[in-house]
Amino acid sequence: MQDTTTAAILVIGDEILSGQTKDKNIGFLADSLSELGIDLEEVRIVSDNSDAIVDAVRALSATYTLVFTTGGIGPTHDDITADAIAAACRVELRVDDRALEIMNQFYADTGREMTEARRRMARIPVGAELIENSVSAAPGFSIQNIHVMAGVPAIMQAMFASLAPTLPTAIAVEKETIEAGRGESLVAELLERVQQDNPAVKIGSYPYHDGERPTTKIVVRSRDRDALAIAAASIRAGLDSMPGVGGR
Amino acid sequence: MQDTTTAAILVIGDEILSGQTKDKNIGFLADSLSELGIDLEEVRIVSDNSDAIVDAVRALSATYTLVFTTGGIGPTHDDITADAIAAACRVELRVDDRALEIMNQFYADTGREMTEARRRMARIPVGAELIENSVSAAPGFSIQNIHVMAGVPAIMQAMFASLAPTLPTAIAVEKETIEAGRGESLVAELLERVQQDNPAVKIGSYPYHDGERPTTKIVVRSRDRDALAIAAASIRAGLDSMPGVGGR
Repeated sequence: MQDTTTAAILVIGDEILSGQTKDKNIGFLADSLSELGIDLEEVRIVSDNSDAIVDAVRALSATYTLVFTTGGIGPTHDDITADAIAAACRVELRVDDRALEIMNQFYADTGREMTEARRRMARIPVGAELIENSVSAAPGFSIQNIHVMAGVPAIMQAMFASLAPTLPTAIAVEKETIEAGRGESLVAELLERVQQDNPAVKIGSYPYHDGERPTTKIVVRSRDRDALAIAAASIRAGLDSMPGVGGR
Repeated sequence: MQDTTTAAILVIGDEILSGQTKDKNIGFLADSLSELGIDLEEVRIVSDNSDAIVDAVRALSATYTLVFTTGGIGPTHDDITADAIAAACRVELRVDDRALEIMNQFYADTGREMTEARRRMARIPVGAELIENSVSAAPGFSIQNIHVMAGVPAIMQAMFASLAPTLPTAIAVEKETIEAGRGESLVAELLERVQQDNPAVKIGSYPYHDGERPTTKIVVRSRDRDALAIAAASIRAGLDSMPGVGGR
């Protein structure tokens, strides 16, 4: 178990940038990585453009422990992620016998045929490990520190489930959420003071409207449980000593 | 009106990366920019970390016509976007008299007081224009090609509404959506052929499950209406000449 494991997500697809499709993978992966103790530090969304994918994947792969990509590994002409990842890693993209066998078996079992378009999905960068797809067979793959998954949420989630046990986990970040009962401006001074006194925790404040009035959710996060308990107690004590509720 | 206007979004906030909050601004801005004919080409999400914000905003500002940021301009210690944007643009961050006047007026009208925390939200990089906030007064700002907005969706949307009329628009991209009635693999060859014959359009295909079977939404996009009509007609003719429905 490492002290910290960092990660980035690269979402690939014109349909997200054009507003055509609303991304559902970032939120799912943010939650899942958080549970595994992996620190998600950056997300990028780029179009189905080879240069954009290559540049982004190289930059993220060099900066973070793990990179997860979603999208662009289907059977059509606009699915160019496998080509771009192979280019980014400077390896060849070839029809993979393991992938072909898995897909042939699945198509035989479900009364479908292997077509030229489907065969496209068996192209895997040389040296990559396959990521199992329990929904529709055509696999994702891992190469270097890059994990390449489908964009369809159900398939991406199935791929992540098979990938998760193989990832380097770290001590999970613990958190406490405190409802401030008042607007963000009214708790700002308290939070700044507690943050300064407790450098081992990270205090975030998230203003929202509870339907009746503006209020604030305070979230204290740390890998150190004791530090977390002390900081949270200081915030609760500070809130208790304040006059009633107010504006934002 | 320009031929094309490109844009990037920079979402700033630990709460999105930790999974604590699900982003709603990317989808809204993707739709809004698409309606204005502005091509959204990249999105990044970074944490509330000065270096991360400065690096991202400089890279995006140098690459695209417009940059929109959301998040990190509230009254608390973890709101560091204004500081980071000033640093990225190499200008000073100062309490702005225009911002202060707007906020003083709003607080007077709503029976609140200007506090030190709220005064923090009047700090604006020197040389920036203010972006009106019709919800809670504290303004966003525009400097160079960078438009800095709040993270709370209702406030961000109000800011974008006041910003939109000032943006350089382009000819909107028109689109036609065609329901394939069959899985993506079965239309891949048709789409590749039509794409090659019609370079002025961009054809995307989006597999989904309609509850009964896997099917595909085909989206044809172009700024050239005639080219769009011809390509869409070719796809429809191709689908009509195919045998019935099938798997993905």
